[in-house]
Amino acid sequence: MTGPATTRDAFLGGRLTLQQPATGYRAATDPVFLAAACPARPGDTVLELGCGVGAAALCLHARVPGLRLTGVERQPAYAALARANARDAGADLTVVEADLADLPADLRQHSFDHVLANPPYFAAGDGTAAADPGREAANREDTPLALWIATARARLKPQGWLTLVHGADRLPDCLAGLRAGWGAVTVLPLQPRPGRPASRVLIRARKGARAPFRLLAPFLVHEFPAHPGDRPDYTAAADAVLRQAAALAFD
Amino acid sequence: MTGPATTRDAFLGGRLTLQQPATGYRAATDPVFLAAACPARPGDTVLELGCGVGAAALCLHARVPGLRLTGVERQPAYAALARANARDAGADLTVVEADLADLPADLRQHSFDHVLANPPYFAAGDGTAAADPGREAANREDTPLALWIATARARLKPQGWLTLVHGADRLPDCLAGLRAGWGAVTVLPLQPRPGRPASRVLIRARKGARAPFRLLAPFLVHEFPAHPGDRPDYTAAADAVLRQAAALAFD
Repeated sequence: MTGPATTRDAFLGGRLTLQQPATGYRAATDPVFLAAACPARPGDTVLELGCGVGAAALCLHARVPGLRLTGVERQPAYAALARANARDAGADLTVVEADLADLPADLRQHSFDHVLANPPYFAAGDGTAAADPGREAANREDTPLALWIATARARLKPQGWLTLVHGADRLPDCLAGLRAGWGAVTVLPLQPRPGRPASRVLIRARKGARAPFRLLAPFLVHEFPAHPGDRPDYTAAADAVLRQAAALAFD
Repeated sequence: MTGPATTRDAFLGGRLTLQQPATGYRAATDPVFLAAACPARPGDTVLELGCGVGAAALCLHARVPGLRLTGVERQPAYAALARANARDAGADLTVVEADLADLPADLRQHSFDHVLANPPYFAAGDGTAAADPGREAANREDTPLALWIATARARLKPQGWLTLVHGADRLPDCLAGLRAGWGAVTVLPLQPRPGRPASRVLIRARKGARAPFRLLAPFLVHEFPAHPGDRPDYTAAADAVLRQAAALAFD
Protein backbone atom coordinates (compact mmCIF):
# COMPACT_ATOMS: atom_id res chain seq x y z
CA MET A 1 0.00 0.00 0.00
CA THR A 2 0.96 3.63 -0.37
CA GLY A 3 0.19 5.31 2.87
CA PRO A 4 1.59 7.62 5.50
CA ALA A 5 5.08 7.21 6.89
CA THR A 6 4.93 4.67 9.68
CA THR A 7 6.93 3.44 12.64
CA ARG A 8 7.00 -0.05 14.15
CA ASP A 9 6.42 -0.03 17.88
CA ALA A 10 6.66 -2.79 20.47
CA PHE A 11 3.75 -3.42 22.86
CA LEU A 12 3.32 -5.92 25.70
CA GLY A 13 7.03 -6.30 26.30
CA GLY A 14 7.63 -7.19 22.66
CA ARG A 15 4.80 -9.74 22.33
CA LEU A 16 3.16 -7.45 19.77
CA THR A 17 4.57 -5.11 17.13
CA LEU A 18 2.33 -2.47 15.60
CA GLN A 19 2.92 -0.41 12.53
CA GLN A 20 1.52 3.07 13.16
CA PRO A 21 1.50 6.39 11.34
CA ALA A 22 4.60 8.37 12.34
CA THR A 23 2.36 11.37 12.94
CA GLY A 24 -1.32 11.41 13.80
CA TYR A 25 -3.14 9.26 16.35
CA ARG A 26 -0.70 6.79 17.94
CA ALA A 27 -1.70 4.06 20.33
CA ALA A 28 -0.07 4.33 23.76
CA THR A 29 -1.27 2.63 26.93
CA ASP A 30 -5.05 3.17 26.69
CA PRO A 31 -5.76 0.36 24.21
CA VAL A 32 -3.49 -1.95 26.22
CA PHE A 33 -5.53 -1.32 29.38
CA LEU A 34 -8.73 -1.68 27.35
CA ALA A 35 -7.69 -5.12 26.12
CA ALA A 36 -6.60 -6.12 29.63
CA ALA A 37 -10.06 -5.21 30.97
CA CYS A 38 -12.02 -7.34 28.47
CA PRO A 39 -13.22 -10.64 30.01
CA ALA A 40 -13.06 -12.54 26.68
CA ARG A 41 -12.45 -16.28 26.78
CA PRO A 42 -10.84 -18.48 24.12
CA GLY A 43 -13.02 -18.83 21.05
CA ASP A 44 -15.19 -15.75 21.79
CA THR A 45 -16.23 -13.28 19.14
CA VAL A 46 -15.07 -9.70 19.69
CA LEU A 47 -15.98 -6.49 17.87
CA GLU A 48 -13.88 -3.35 18.27
CA LEU A 49 -15.54 -0.08 17.32
CA GLY A 50 -13.01 2.45 16.02
CA CYS A 51 -10.10 -0.01 16.01
CA GLY A 52 -7.45 2.33 14.57
CA VAL A 53 -4.35 0.27 13.73
CA GLY A 54 -5.77 -2.61 15.80
CA ALA A 55 -3.94 -2.02 19.07
CA ALA A 56 -6.65 -3.14 21.51
CA ALA A 57 -7.87 -6.07 19.41
CA LEU A 58 -4.33 -7.34 18.88
CA CYS A 59 -3.36 -6.91 22.53
CA LEU A 60 -6.40 -9.03 23.36
CA HIS A 61 -5.27 -11.60 20.77
CA ALA A 62 -1.88 -11.73 22.49
CA ARG A 63 -3.54 -12.66 25.82
CA VAL A 64 -6.52 -14.83 24.81
CA PRO A 65 -6.11 -17.54 22.17
CA GLY A 66 -8.61 -18.44 19.48
CA LEU A 67 -10.57 -15.18 19.36
CA ARG A 68 -12.50 -14.24 16.26
CA LEU A 69 -11.93 -10.51 16.04
CA THR A 70 -13.67 -7.84 13.98
CA GLY A 71 -12.62 -4.20 13.87
CA VAL A 72 -14.53 -1.24 12.46
CA GLU A 73 -12.43 1.71 11.32
CA ARG A 74 -13.56 4.58 9.12
CA GLN A 75 -10.13 5.97 8.21
CA PRO A 76 -8.74 3.93 5.26
CA ALA A 77 -5.05 4.37 6.19
CA TYR A 78 -5.65 3.09 9.73
CA ALA A 79 -7.83 0.21 8.49
CA ALA A 80 -5.05 -0.85 6.10
CA LEU A 81 -2.48 -0.76 8.90
CA ALA A 82 -4.79 -2.79 11.17
CA ARG A 83 -4.98 -5.48 8.46
CA ALA A 84 -1.19 -5.52 8.09
CA ASN A 85 -0.69 -5.63 11.86
CA ALA A 86 -3.16 -8.52 12.20
CA ARG A 87 -1.34 -10.45 9.47
CA ASP A 88 2.00 -9.91 11.23
CA ALA A 89 0.49 -11.00 14.55
CA GLY A 90 -1.22 -14.06 13.08
CA ALA A 91 -4.57 -12.84 14.40
CA ASP A 92 -8.00 -13.65 13.01
CA LEU A 93 -8.99 -9.98 12.66
CA THR A 94 -11.43 -8.84 10.01
CA VAL A 95 -11.25 -5.09 9.47
CA VAL A 96 -14.38 -3.41 8.16
CA GLU A 97 -13.83 0.05 6.74
CA ALA A 98 -16.99 1.85 7.83
CA ASP A 99 -18.44 4.55 10.03
CA LEU A 100 -19.92 3.02 13.17
CA ALA A 101 -22.98 5.22 12.63
CA ASP A 102 -23.58 3.40 9.34
CA LEU A 103 -22.40 -0.20 9.63
CA PRO A 104 -22.67 -2.41 6.52
CA ALA A 105 -25.69 -4.72 6.40
CA ASP A 106 -23.68 -7.94 6.73
CA LEU A 107 -22.00 -6.72 9.91
CA ARG A 108 -25.40 -5.73 11.27
CA GLN A 109 -26.44 -9.38 10.92
CA HIS A 110 -23.75 -10.53 13.34
CA SER A 111 -23.76 -10.36 17.10
CA PHE A 112 -20.74 -10.67 19.35
CA ASP A 113 -19.73 -11.90 22.81
CA HIS A 114 -17.74 -8.73 23.41
CA VAL A 115 -17.48 -5.19 22.15
CA LEU A 116 -14.42 -3.01 22.82
CA ALA A 117 -14.30 0.76 22.38
CA ASN A 118 -11.84 3.56 22.98
CA PRO A 119 -13.95 6.52 21.84
CA PRO A 120 -12.52 9.98 21.13
CA TYR A 121 -11.80 11.81 24.38
CA PHE A 122 -12.82 15.30 23.41
CA ALA A 123 -16.48 16.20 22.98
CA ALA A 124 -17.45 18.01 19.78
CA GLY A 125 -16.55 21.69 20.06
CA ASP A 126 -14.07 21.32 22.96
CA GLY A 127 -10.53 22.62 22.78
CA THR A 128 -8.32 23.09 19.76
CA ALA A 129 -8.32 20.87 16.68
CA ALA A 130 -5.22 18.75 16.07
CA ALA A 131 -3.24 19.78 12.99
CA ASP A 132 -3.07 16.18 11.78
CA PRO A 133 -6.41 15.08 10.28
CA GLY A 134 -5.95 11.44 11.35
CA ARG A 135 -5.30 12.44 14.94
CA GLU A 136 -8.18 14.90 14.82
CA ALA A 137 -10.60 12.20 13.62
CA ALA A 138 -9.41 9.79 16.32
CA ASN A 139 -9.55 12.36 19.13
CA ARG A 140 -12.64 14.35 18.28
CA GLU A 141 -16.10 13.10 19.05
CA ASP A 142 -18.15 13.86 15.99
CA THR A 143 -20.03 10.60 16.51
CA PRO A 144 -21.82 11.12 19.85
CA LEU A 145 -20.73 8.83 22.68
CA ALA A 146 -24.35 7.71 23.11
CA LEU A 147 -24.24 6.36 19.56
CA TRP A 148 -21.05 4.40 20.26
CA ILE A 149 -22.78 2.77 23.23
CA ALA A 150 -26.06 2.14 21.41
CA THR A 151 -24.15 0.60 18.48
CA ALA A 152 -22.25 -1.63 20.90
CA ARG A 153 -25.50 -2.78 22.48
CA ALA A 154 -27.08 -3.50 19.10
CA ARG A 155 -24.13 -5.73 18.12
CA LEU A 156 -23.85 -7.64 21.43
CA LYS A 157 -25.45 -10.97 22.19
CA PRO A 158 -27.74 -11.03 25.25
CA GLN A 159 -25.49 -10.94 28.34
CA GLY A 160 -22.58 -9.86 26.14
CA TRP A 161 -19.97 -7.50 27.55
CA LEU A 162 -19.03 -4.00 26.54
CA THR A 163 -15.59 -2.86 27.69
CA LEU A 164 -14.59 0.73 27.14
CA VAL A 165 -11.93 3.21 28.13
CA HIS A 166 -12.56 6.94 28.29
CA GLY A 167 -11.29 10.11 29.90
CA ALA A 168 -12.38 10.23 33.56
CA ASP A 169 -14.09 13.57 32.95
CA ARG A 170 -16.47 11.78 30.57
CA LEU A 171 -17.67 9.27 33.19
CA PRO A 172 -21.09 10.98 33.55
CA ASP A 173 -21.62 10.74 29.78
CA CYS A 174 -20.58 7.08 29.74
CA LEU A 175 -22.94 6.23 32.59
CA ALA A 176 -25.78 8.16 30.95
CA GLY A 177 -25.38 5.96 27.87
CA LEU A 178 -25.43 2.83 30.03
CA ARG A 179 -28.63 3.55 31.99
CA ALA A 180 -31.14 1.64 29.88
CA GLY A 181 -30.63 -1.96 28.76
CA TRP A 182 -27.39 -2.55 30.65
CA GLY A 183 -26.45 -3.91 34.04
CA ALA A 184 -23.42 -4.95 36.09
CA VAL A 185 -21.86 -1.61 35.14
CA THR A 186 -18.45 -1.54 36.82
CA VAL A 187 -15.93 1.30 36.80
CA LEU A 188 -12.21 0.81 37.36
CA PRO A 189 -10.57 4.24 37.65
CA LEU A 190 -7.01 4.53 36.33
CA GLN A 191 -5.12 6.68 38.80
CA PRO A 192 -1.89 8.04 37.32
CA ARG A 193 -0.10 8.51 40.66
CA PRO A 194 -0.93 8.11 44.37
CA GLY A 195 -3.52 10.59 45.63
CA ARG A 196 -4.31 11.98 42.18
CA PRO A 197 -7.75 12.12 40.58
CA ALA A 198 -8.50 9.45 38.00
CA SER A 199 -7.25 10.25 34.49
CA ARG A 200 -9.08 7.47 32.67
CA VAL A 201 -11.94 5.14 33.49
CA LEU A 202 -12.23 1.55 32.34
CA ILE A 203 -15.87 0.52 32.23
CA ARG A 204 -17.47 -2.86 31.84
CA ALA A 205 -21.20 -3.29 31.28
CA ARG A 206 -23.29 -6.32 30.45
CA LYS A 207 -26.20 -6.21 28.03
CA GLY A 208 -29.49 -6.99 29.75
CA ALA A 209 -27.90 -7.78 33.13
CA ARG A 210 -29.40 -6.60 36.43
CA ALA A 211 -26.46 -6.51 38.84
CA PRO A 212 -25.90 -3.14 40.56
CA PHE A 213 -23.33 -0.52 39.65
CA ARG A 214 -19.91 -0.79 41.31
CA LEU A 215 -17.08 1.71 41.64
CA LEU A 216 -13.86 -0.23 42.19
CA ALA A 217 -10.72 0.82 44.01
CA PRO A 218 -8.53 2.66 41.50
CA PHE A 219 -5.78 0.95 39.56
CA LEU A 220 -2.56 2.80 40.32
CA VAL A 221 -0.36 3.20 37.24
CA HIS A 222 2.79 4.86 38.63
CA GLU A 223 4.38 4.14 41.98
CA PHE A 224 5.46 7.60 43.09
CA PRO A 225 3.60 10.86 43.64
CA ALA A 226 5.94 12.60 41.18
CA HIS A 227 8.03 11.18 38.37
CA PRO A 228 11.49 10.22 39.71
CA GLY A 229 13.72 11.57 36.94
CA ASP A 230 14.27 9.20 34.05
CA ARG A 231 13.49 5.96 35.86
CA PRO A 232 10.28 4.28 34.74
CA ASP A 233 8.09 3.85 37.80
CA TYR A 234 5.16 1.69 36.77
CA THR A 235 3.62 -0.21 39.66
CA ALA A 236 4.13 -3.97 39.54
CA ALA A 237 0.47 -4.37 38.59
CA ALA A 238 0.75 -1.85 35.73
CA ASP A 239 3.96 -3.47 34.54
CA ALA A 240 2.18 -6.84 34.47
CA VAL A 241 -0.57 -5.39 32.25
CA LEU A 242 1.61 -3.27 29.98
CA ARG A 243 4.66 -5.52 29.56
CA GLN A 244 3.44 -9.01 30.41
CA ALA A 245 -0.06 -8.99 28.88
CA ALA A 246 -1.78 -9.69 32.22
CA ALA A 247 -5.54 -9.30 32.57
CA LEU A 248 -6.96 -6.54 34.75
CA ALA A 249 -8.92 -7.87 37.72
CA PHE A 250 -12.33 -6.26 37.84
CA ASP A 251 -13.32 -6.93 41.44
CA MET B 1 -42.59 16.66 73.95
CA THR B 2 -43.91 13.13 74.05
CA GLY B 3 -42.02 11.13 71.50
CA PRO B 4 -40.16 7.90 70.93
CA ALA B 5 -37.60 6.60 73.42
CA THR B 6 -34.29 8.25 72.64
CA THR B 7 -30.59 7.89 73.30
CA ARG B 8 -27.96 10.61 73.56
CA ASP B 9 -24.96 9.93 71.35
CA ALA B 10 -21.62 11.68 71.04
CA PHE B 11 -20.32 12.77 67.63
CA LEU B 12 -17.09 14.48 66.57
CA GLY B 13 -15.16 13.27 69.59
CA GLY B 14 -17.75 14.73 71.95
CA ARG B 15 -18.05 18.16 70.28
CA LEU B 16 -21.67 17.33 69.47
CA THR B 17 -24.33 15.34 71.31
CA LEU B 18 -27.41 14.19 69.43
CA GLN B 19 -30.62 12.86 70.84
CA GLN B 20 -31.87 10.13 68.52
CA PRO B 21 -34.70 7.61 68.52
CA ALA B 22 -33.52 4.43 70.27
CA THR B 23 -34.92 2.44 67.35
CA GLY B 24 -35.47 3.60 63.79
CA TYR B 25 -33.09 5.58 61.58
CA ARG B 26 -29.96 6.49 63.55
CA ALA B 27 -27.21 8.73 62.27
CA ALA B 28 -23.80 7.07 62.06
CA THR B 29 -20.83 8.25 60.01
CA ASP B 30 -22.55 9.25 56.74
CA PRO B 31 -23.87 12.64 57.92
CA VAL B 32 -20.49 13.36 59.53
CA PHE B 33 -18.72 12.81 56.21
CA LEU B 34 -21.43 14.82 54.44
CA ALA B 35 -20.84 17.82 56.72
CA ALA B 36 -17.07 17.45 56.32
CA ALA B 37 -17.45 17.62 52.53
CA CYS B 38 -19.47 20.86 52.48
CA PRO B 39 -17.35 23.91 51.55
CA ALA B 40 -19.42 26.34 53.65
CA ARG B 41 -17.70 29.45 55.02
CA PRO B 42 -18.59 31.43 58.14
CA GLY B 43 -21.88 33.28 57.73
CA ASP B 44 -23.14 31.18 54.80
CA THR B 45 -26.72 29.99 54.51
CA VAL B 46 -27.20 26.23 54.38
CA LEU B 47 -30.28 24.13 53.65
CA GLU B 48 -30.38 20.45 54.52
CA LEU B 49 -33.00 18.37 52.72
CA GLY B 50 -34.19 15.48 54.90
CA CYS B 51 -32.29 16.58 57.99
CA GLY B 52 -33.49 13.83 60.36
CA VAL B 53 -32.36 14.71 63.90
CA GLY B 54 -29.99 17.34 62.44
CA ALA B 55 -26.77 15.32 62.40
CA ALA B 56 -25.20 16.75 59.22
CA ALA B 57 -26.31 20.35 59.83
CA LEU B 58 -25.07 20.27 63.42
CA CYS B 59 -21.75 18.65 62.50
CA LEU B 60 -21.29 21.48 60.02
CA HIS B 61 -22.16 23.99 62.77
CA ALA B 62 -19.46 22.40 64.95
CA ARG B 63 -16.83 23.08 62.25
CA VAL B 64 -17.90 26.38 60.67
CA PRO B 65 -19.01 29.28 62.86
CA GLY B 66 -21.85 31.66 62.15
CA LEU B 67 -23.86 29.51 59.73
CA ARG B 68 -27.55 30.16 59.25
CA LEU B 69 -28.93 26.65 58.93
CA THR B 70 -32.33 25.43 57.71
CA GLY B 71 -33.42 21.80 57.80
CA VAL B 72 -36.39 20.20 56.09
CA GLU B 73 -37.76 17.04 57.68
CA ARG B 74 -41.12 15.43 56.99
CA GLN B 75 -41.24 13.12 60.04
CA PRO B 76 -42.53 15.12 63.06
CA ALA B 77 -40.63 13.12 65.72
CA TYR B 78 -37.31 13.65 63.91
CA ALA B 79 -38.04 17.34 63.29
CA ALA B 80 -38.73 17.81 67.01
CA LEU B 81 -35.46 16.09 67.93
CA ALA B 82 -33.57 18.24 65.40
CA ARG B 83 -34.93 21.36 67.11
CA ALA B 84 -33.95 20.06 70.56
CA ASN B 85 -30.48 19.07 69.30
CA ALA B 86 -29.95 22.50 67.73
CA ARG B 87 -30.92 24.19 70.98
CA ASP B 88 -28.47 22.01 72.92
CA ALA B 89 -25.72 22.77 70.39
CA GLY B 90 -26.44 26.51 70.32
CA ALA B 91 -26.92 26.35 66.56
CA ASP B 92 -29.00 28.71 64.42
CA LEU B 93 -31.02 25.88 62.85
CA THR B 94 -34.58 26.42 61.67
CA VAL B 95 -36.38 23.13 61.17
CA VAL B 96 -39.23 23.13 58.66
CA GLU B 97 -41.55 20.16 58.94
CA ALA B 98 -42.40 19.48 55.31
CA ASP B 99 -42.01 17.08 52.43
CA LEU B 100 -39.25 18.24 50.10
CA ALA B 101 -41.61 17.55 47.19
CA ASP B 102 -43.97 20.20 48.59
CA LEU B 103 -41.95 22.91 50.33
CA PRO B 104 -43.88 25.74 52.03
CA ALA B 105 -44.17 28.97 50.06
CA ASP B 106 -41.98 31.03 52.40
CA LEU B 107 -39.11 28.52 52.13
CA ARG B 108 -39.49 28.60 48.34
CA GLN B 109 -38.79 32.33 48.50
CA HIS B 110 -35.35 31.76 49.99
CA SER B 111 -32.18 30.72 48.24
CA PHE B 112 -29.08 29.32 49.90
CA ASP B 113 -25.31 29.21 49.50
CA HIS B 114 -25.28 25.47 50.17
CA VAL B 115 -27.60 22.51 50.11
CA LEU B 116 -26.80 19.25 51.92
CA ALA B 117 -28.55 15.95 51.31
CA ASN B 118 -28.23 12.37 52.49
CA PRO B 119 -31.06 10.79 50.46
CA PRO B 120 -32.47 7.33 51.20
CA TYR B 121 -30.14 4.62 49.91
CA PHE B 122 -32.64 2.12 48.64
CA ALA B 123 -34.61 2.78 45.48
CA ALA B 124 -38.37 2.32 45.64
CA GLY B 125 -39.22 -1.36 45.43
CA ASP B 126 -35.73 -2.67 46.30
CA GLY B 127 -35.14 -5.10 49.13
CA THR B 128 -37.12 -5.63 52.28
CA ALA B 129 -38.97 -2.93 54.20
CA ALA B 130 -37.62 -2.03 57.63
CA ALA B 131 -39.98 -3.00 60.48
CA ASP B 132 -39.61 0.47 62.03
CA PRO B 133 -41.64 3.07 60.11
CA GLY B 134 -39.18 5.89 60.92
CA ARG B 135 -36.26 3.89 59.61
CA GLU B 136 -38.27 2.80 56.58
CA ALA B 137 -39.14 6.42 55.72
CA ALA B 138 -35.49 7.47 56.10
CA ASN B 139 -34.09 4.55 54.09
CA ARG B 140 -36.64 4.15 51.33
CA GLU B 141 -36.71 6.38 48.31
CA ASP B 142 -40.33 7.21 47.74
CA THR B 143 -39.28 10.70 46.70
CA PRO B 144 -37.22 10.10 43.51
CA LEU B 145 -33.56 11.07 43.72
CA ALA B 146 -34.01 13.32 40.69
CA LEU B 147 -36.52 15.34 42.71
CA TRP B 148 -34.07 15.73 45.61
CA ILE B 149 -31.50 17.11 43.17
CA ALA B 150 -33.97 19.35 41.33
CA THR B 151 -35.24 20.73 44.65
CA ALA B 152 -31.66 21.41 45.73
CA ARG B 153 -31.01 23.28 42.49
CA ALA B 154 -34.18 25.35 42.84
CA ARG B 155 -33.18 26.45 46.34
CA LEU B 156 -29.51 27.27 45.55
CA LYS B 157 -28.14 30.66 44.63
CA PRO B 158 -26.29 30.86 41.31
CA GLN B 159 -22.88 29.20 41.82
CA GLY B 160 -24.17 27.65 45.05
CA TRP B 161 -22.95 24.22 46.09
CA LEU B 162 -24.82 20.98 46.52
CA THR B 163 -23.06 18.38 48.68
CA LEU B 164 -24.55 14.92 48.91
CA VAL B 165 -23.71 11.47 50.17
CA HIS B 166 -25.19 8.34 48.67
CA GLY B 167 -24.57 4.63 48.27
CA ALA B 168 -21.85 4.05 45.67
CA ASP B 169 -24.21 1.86 43.66
CA ARG B 170 -26.40 4.92 43.11
CA LEU B 171 -23.62 6.99 41.51
CA PRO B 172 -25.13 6.66 37.99
CA ASP B 173 -28.47 7.98 39.29
CA CYS B 174 -26.77 10.88 41.08
CA LEU B 175 -24.81 11.84 37.97
CA ALA B 176 -27.93 11.58 35.81
CA GLY B 177 -29.62 14.13 38.07
CA LEU B 178 -26.60 16.43 37.79
CA ARG B 179 -26.28 16.51 33.99
CA ALA B 180 -28.24 19.68 33.26
CA GLY B 181 -27.70 22.98 35.07
CA TRP B 182 -24.72 21.84 37.15
CA GLY B 183 -20.95 21.89 36.74
CA ALA B 184 -17.77 21.18 38.69
CA VAL B 185 -19.28 17.83 39.64
CA THR B 186 -16.70 16.07 41.80
CA VAL B 187 -16.92 12.59 43.28
CA LEU B 188 -14.96 11.50 46.34
CA PRO B 189 -15.44 7.74 46.81
CA LEU B 190 -15.45 6.47 50.39
CA GLN B 191 -13.48 3.24 50.38
CA PRO B 192 -14.16 1.17 53.51
CA ARG B 193 -10.85 -0.73 53.42
CA PRO B 194 -7.79 -0.96 51.12
CA GLY B 195 -8.53 -2.51 47.74
CA ARG B 196 -12.30 -2.62 48.29
CA PRO B 197 -14.91 -1.07 46.01
CA ALA B 198 -16.39 2.22 47.17
CA SER B 199 -19.28 1.87 49.63
CA ARG B 200 -20.42 5.49 49.55
CA VAL B 201 -19.84 8.46 47.29
CA LEU B 202 -19.57 12.05 48.41
CA ILE B 203 -20.53 14.38 45.58
CA ARG B 204 -20.15 18.10 45.19
CA ALA B 205 -21.75 20.02 42.34
CA ARG B 206 -22.05 23.71 41.65
CA LYS B 207 -25.18 25.29 40.21
CA GLY B 208 -24.55 26.81 36.79
CA ALA B 209 -20.79 26.11 36.82
CA ARG B 210 -18.93 24.82 33.76
CA ALA B 211 -15.87 23.07 35.18
CA PRO B 212 -15.45 19.43 34.09
CA PHE B 213 -16.33 16.33 36.07
CA ARG B 214 -13.63 14.88 38.34
CA LEU B 215 -13.30 11.50 40.01
CA LEU B 216 -10.98 11.90 43.00
CA ALA B 217 -8.73 9.34 44.63
CA PRO B 218 -10.83 7.47 47.19
CA PHE B 219 -10.91 8.43 50.85
CA LEU B 220 -9.83 5.38 52.83
CA VAL B 221 -11.87 4.93 56.02
CA HIS B 222 -10.22 1.93 57.71
CA GLU B 223 -6.52 1.16 57.74
CA PHE B 224 -6.49 -2.59 57.34
CA PRO B 225 -7.87 -4.95 54.71
CA ALA B 226 -9.85 -6.81 57.41
CA HIS B 227 -11.03 -5.62 60.81
CA PRO B 228 -8.33 -6.37 63.41
CA GLY B 229 -10.45 -7.75 66.26
CA ASP B 230 -11.86 -5.15 68.60
CA ARG B 231 -9.34 -2.41 67.92
CA PRO B 232 -10.77 0.57 66.04
CA ASP B 233 -8.71 1.02 62.89
CA TYR B 234 -9.80 4.31 61.34
CA THR B 235 -7.14 5.89 59.18
CA ALA B 236 -5.64 9.09 60.57
CA ALA B 237 -7.59 11.07 57.95
CA ALA B 238 -10.90 9.40 58.87
CA ASP B 239 -10.20 9.92 62.55
CA ALA B 240 -9.61 13.62 61.86
CA VAL B 241 -13.00 13.90 60.16
CA LEU B 242 -15.01 11.73 62.54
CA ARG B 243 -13.46 12.70 65.89
CA GLN B 244 -11.84 16.08 65.30
CA ALA B 245 -14.38 17.74 62.97
CA ALA B 246 -11.83 18.20 60.16
CA ALA B 247 -12.97 19.19 56.68
CA LEU B 248 -12.63 16.72 53.82
CA ALA B 249 -10.24 17.93 51.12
CA PHE B 250 -11.92 17.75 47.72
CA ASP B 251 -8.92 17.87 45.42
